[in-house]
Amino acid sequence: MQLGMVGLGRMGANIVRRLMRDGHECVVFDVNPDAVAALAAEGATGADSIDDLAAKLRGPRAVWLMVPAGLTGGVVDQVAAVLEPGDMIIDGGNSNYRDDVRRAAALQDRGIHFLDVGTSGGVFGLERGYCLMIGGPDEAFAALEPIFRTIAPGAGDLTRTPGREGDLAAEELGYLHCGPSGAGHFVKMVHNGIEYGIMAALAEGMNILENADAGMREAEHSAEIAPLGEPEFYRFTIDTPKVAELWRRGSVISSWLLDLTAAGLQQNPTLDGLAGRVSDSGEGRWTVKAAVDIGVPVPVLAASLFERFASRDEDRYANQLLSAMRLQFGGHQELPTGDVLEAGARKAE
Amino acid sequence: MQLGMVGLGRMGANIVRRLMRDGHECVVFDVNPDAVAALAAEGATGADSIDDLAAKLRGPRAVWLMVPAGLTGGVVDQVAAVLEPGDMIIDGGNSNYRDDVRRAAALQDRGIHFLDVGTSGGVFGLERGYCLMIGGPDEAFAALEPIFRTIAPGAGDLTRTPGREGDLAAEELGYLHCGPSGAGHFVKMVHNGIEYGIMAALAEGMNILENADAGMREAEHSAEIAPLGEPEFYRFTIDTPKVAELWRRGSVISSWLLDLTAAGLQQNPTLDGLAGRVSDSGEGRWTVKAAVDIGVPVPVLAASLFERFASRDEDRYANQLLSAMRLQFGGHQELPTGDVLEAGARKAE
Amino acid sequence: MQLGMVGLGRMGANIVRRLMRDGHECVVFDVNPDAVAALAAEGATGADSIDDLAAKLRGPRAVWLMVPAGLTGGVVDQVAAVLEPGDMIIDGGNSNYRDDVRRAAALQDRGIHFLDVGTSGGVFGLERGYCLMIGGPDEAFAALEPIFRTIAPGAGDLTRTPGREGDLAAEELGYLHCGPSGAGHFVKMVHNGIEYGIMAALAEGMNILENADAGMREAEHSAEIAPLGEPEFYRFTIDTPKVAELWRRGSVISSWLLDLTAAGLQQNPTLDGLAGRVSDSGEGRWTVKAAVDIGVPVPVLAASLFERFASRDEDRYANQLLSAMRLQFGGHQELPTGDVLEAGARKAE
Amino acid sequence: MQLGMVGLGRMGANIVRRLMRDGHECVVFDVNPDAVAALAAEGATGADSIDDLAAKLRGPRAVWLMVPAGLTGGVVDQVAAVLEPGDMIIDGGNSNYRDDVRRAAALQDRGIHFLDVGTSGGVFGLERGYCLMIGGPDEAFAALEPIFRTIAPGAGDLTRTPGREGDLAAEELGYLHCGPSGAGHFVKMVHNGIEYGIMAALAEGMNILENADAGMREAEHSAEIAPLGEPEFYRFTIDTPKVAELWRRGSVISSWLLDLTAAGLQQNPTLDGLAGRVSDSGEGRWTVKAAVDIGVPVPVLAASLFERFASRDEDRYANQLLSAMRLQFGGHQELPTGDVLEAGARKAE
Repeated sequence: MQLGMVGLGRMGANIVRRLMRDGHECVVFDVNPDAVAALAAEGATGADSIDDLAAKLRGPRAVWLMVPAGLTGGVVDQVAAVLEPGDMIIDGGNSNYRDDVRRAAALQDRGIHFLDVGTSGGVFGLERGYCLMIGGPDEAFAALEPIFRTIAPGAGDLTRTPGREGDLAAEELGYLHCGPSGAGHFVKMVHNGIEYGIMAALAEGMNILENADAGMREAEHSAEIAPLGEPEFYRFTIDTPKVAELWRRGSVISSWLLDLTAAGLQQNPTLDGLAGRVSDSGEGRWTVKAAVDIGVPVPVLAASLFERFASRDEDRYANQLLSAMRLQFGGHQELPTGDVLEAGARKAE
Repeated sequence: MQLGMVGLGRMGANIVRRLMRDGHECVVFDVNPDAVAALAAEGATGADSIDDLAAKLRGPRAVWLMVPAGLTGGVVDQVAAVLEPGDMIIDGGNSNYRDDVRRAAALQDRGIHFLDVGTSGGVFGLERGYCLMIGGPDEAFAALEPIFRTIAPGAGDLTRTPGREGDLAAEELGYLHCGPSGAGHFVKMVHNGIEYGIMAALAEGMNILENADAGMREAEHSAEIAPLGEPEFYRFTIDTPKVAELWRRGSVISSWLLDLTAAGLQQNPTLDGLAGRVSDSGEGRWTVKAAVDIGVPVPVLAASLFERFASRDEDRYANQLLSAMRLQFGGHQELPTGDVLEAGARKAE
Repeated sequence: MQLGMVGLGRMGANIVRRLMRDGHECVVFDVNPDAVAALAAEGATGADSIDDLAAKLRGPRAVWLMVPAGLTGGVVDQVAAVLEPGDMIIDGGNSNYRDDVRRAAALQDRGIHFLDVGTSGGVFGLERGYCLMIGGPDEAFAALEPIFRTIAPGAGDLTRTPGREGDLAAEELGYLHCGPSGAGHFVKMVHNGIEYGIMAALAEGMNILENADAGMREAEHSAEIAPLGEPEFYRFTIDTPKVAELWRRGSVISSWLLDLTAAGLQQNPTLDGLAGRVSDSGEGRWTVKAAVDIGVPVPVLAASLFERFASRDEDRYANQLLSAMRLQFGGHQELPTGDVLEAGARKAE
Repeated sequence: MQLGMVGLGRMGANIVRRLMRDGHECVVFDVNPDAVAALAAEGATGADSIDDLAAKLRGPRAVWLMVPAGLTGGVVDQVAAVLEPGDMIIDGGNSNYRDDVRRAAALQDRGIHFLDVGTSGGVFGLERGYCLMIGGPDEAFAALEPIFRTIAPGAGDLTRTPGREGDLAAEELGYLHCGPSGAGHFVKMVHNGIEYGIMAALAEGMNILENADAGMREAEHSAEIAPLGEPEFYRFTIDTPKVAELWRRGSVISSWLLDLTAAGLQQNPTLDGLAGRVSDSGEGRWTVKAAVDIGVPVPVLAASLFERFASRDEDRYANQLLSAMRLQFGGHQELPTGDVLEAGARKAE
């Protein structure tokens, strides 16, 4: 079928390529004419404006937006302005699902269908396909299903889940209609919240392995931390890149994020040049806030988010204050002058 | 080569089968003669005592123990009593790596090599192979490498990690000599610690999805929790079994534990009959304690462990005390008589 | 000076009493005429409607609202309808500071000043005074300062903070102008977030003490949890009510919440009749959400909130799912049939 | 009565002073002769060796040790060597309660009583008194009770806990016989674990207040974190030193640690010169490990410990690894080049 694509960054362009490979017809637009030209050279129909894009699409039109989250609202308005009742807008970006709920309601009044599509897959999506979490009205989902089916990874060579029989369901092909408007980005939001938790579990565990030699380098820490009680149990020099590779095979924690960990450690075994200031891109925060709203305990997901904050020194004032308190109640000087104080001071705590 | 196996539970028996398939010769013993007979019928050499097993092995003997962690110490002693200098004992069970360190030192005095092998793979290991994390002396590892290679999963059909070239390394075949005695179970311990974290991340996220309809059933909660401020954003009825299946394909969080989640939800979509009292088997605890010893922050791993404790009501006294405090400072009655008090009482907090 | 009070629950009534004791004149209204009559009998001027209350106040009028958070919006509108430019509304309830920001802006257009006053002190406030965190315009704060000074606890018999000299500052008397509209409830919100954290720290610690006898009752747990490795170190029967009382004197953690803990345990040493389903009243949630918004890590405050959620079984689905996963990967049956499985199954993890 | 004191650091010396003020007779020793001379000048009997100290004490002798935890074992041995059956050793230092259990058993064979006394009070103990948590045999506790009573704070001017009547109990005077050997340091250990949690709750909350102006300085963060969705709600400039002072009066969280927070902020309002590298001195770690051993969930106490670890960059490898993973799956460059990538890359997550 025919699809308009607005936004030809890496992901928008790759989705267009994946669609064209499977015989779909794409009309494409981007504020960067070079991006349009590049895809036109690969067989897409280029448009030089949103108006032009709308004009080149047959009704009912379907326009997929793949733009940065901060711009989505404006682009939705621009596109909606040139569409007609019965047309469809698909937001494939990283929007907050709350914006979807609001936008869908506003567009519904004008007869335009709005679908939100959470998309996961990373830089590997062109080949691997994109996992699609879809929200929006039933009839619009049904109309666009051929598009979703092409973009999604398909069944792949995974073992089928025991108990599933007969034709493959949509979710077994890598796309799912999760519910009304907002449901797609809601599920994607939670997906990313889980991703933060899994990443943190892997990173914390690897940090233990990296420091399993603490018993061999105790002296350097002596001023800073409580002495290691039993150094004889921490005299392992673990090769973490090899362990990550090992766990990919047959272990309970084998996963795509572990594959990436192994790849990252293979490429840069000592993690040189990485300061460990870890960004977060919104979904992890929204996940925790949603959980708080509905009273669901998420200590692991929240802890993984807070670790990222702390990695960027957002814990600085709190830590300074802790040192200030310790100074008050025990006369404890801060590190590095440190924790090795005379008996009386240590006792003071 | 030849291997003695003591302990023919599911895992011990399957390792023997995997070895025999690949041409190795196995002498087997279990306190249950039926287990011995069953494997003898499949081609193993049965032994009716540990003495008998030792007598049927050629030197240098290699005896693999696959017994419950609580029995390992005693069985190591029994086996060591009938071995000779140069022989090898392999502990494939779930021992605490600290016991390995102690046992290896004691056996070394008698010239017996001790190897600890952390083994992951679950009930699928017979077909899938077992991921092996190995600690012990170099020469013993080298002598046993053919055995490890057979038990391990092998390269499988995974994409090779970018940057790796030439012959496959041991870790790419699913086994790794991690270091001296104890290193194998240490790495396995951390593996399980990570496993707890990943499981918790998945479970917490799915719990959010399961409760994404909170805005549609607000009334039932009104006496118990703060009212939901914006119920219009929590009106999704998410089909969690379908979402788990969906995420298996192309998503960033695809993983074996997600496969199992999908399988569990396929088999029992409403989780009927599960009370949610989650056991823990030791490694998660040891992981947290090791991290505390060496000063590595593991908020996610610890939170996942504590969630399991709380699932078994180990938080009961703490929670009762919180209710007692609230009763004191604000006259707050406990739920269900609840939180809907007159203005003055609410204000009191 | 003169103050109107709307809402004569325990807290509103006690504030009126505290004001009258100090010579202020109070005009009071409540939907419950008995509450009005009771205070009129103590010297207040009763009003039988909000109109009547406004009529009985001299301009510029000051009306303090002490109503449940859910009703505040409506009462603000009612009161504002009968006020005039230059008049002041004080919201002393538990409003979300975001509502203050919105309300203040709306009222400002009509020339009415809006102040938000976070109030802490519990049922002891009549005697002890209320700690006041105040947001709103400078001139309105200045006009109302005599009122705040009376309601606040005053300097009390606390040791003055070293380095403070001269006249007592407002904060040393127990009230503070924290900033523009919303700042008062913002600071109060964070106060309650901290309160949750302190309560949880006390409760968790007491729970350890309560279970310090685990080594003496190990058998009962054997099917459920990993066996206690060193039971000889957990053979203490601690009298937690006595410990709470003890810590009130001279310890680093002496605090009002500890006083309440001691009182609660004195009154009900075995916490009989408390199910441990702990309510939360909004501020703890808002605190965590605010921290997430601005990127401040709050692992302790969040953990204390999530413990309350879990105490009400909001973790149930997550825990069921963990049991379902364990059943898949290791054939682990859930408790109580439990964790004592044959070697093979245990190994499977 | 008569007491020998070994170790005259600040705390040991102040305990001696407190005892002498109340009419007790003290024989004192320290490796530093100046410390001995100073107290001798104040009325104590100086000793120039442990032998000398033993000789100057009447039987049954009582010797209190106040030495750094790392030296306690050796000093116990030295003192025990010169004592006789029926004599008593009191360890007032910060020992791990596990060492007490072992030492008491060893000394019991020789007829010497061992008591462990956890002591809290900080630098203020001389005036304020020390909160004493005592473990050991009943008869030794009874013999030493006059000493404990003097060192403890006494009833002070605290309001008596409602329901307590008649003579003041020991715990109301600030000392408590908690149980057999080890019980004193066990309770003290948990006290410090709670202390970490309370300190963290205060510090995290103050960090939110300090950053309540995030909406006014959003630009500086734009490359690093997700944009602040509603900056209009984070435009408060909170004076944290004033808030700490305020909360001391009438608030629910008033506490000695808050007093110290106010003092620290009064002394150094901008926390200049504090790097925020927070030490930990053992008890917090032991608390978490004990909780893990006995299956008690302590998410708050553990989180407060892990924050300290992270404050010293012990989370560095984990964070580097997270950045390495993000680089793999989304082409995300680490900060500061940061998170502002073209649409495709952002989508990739």
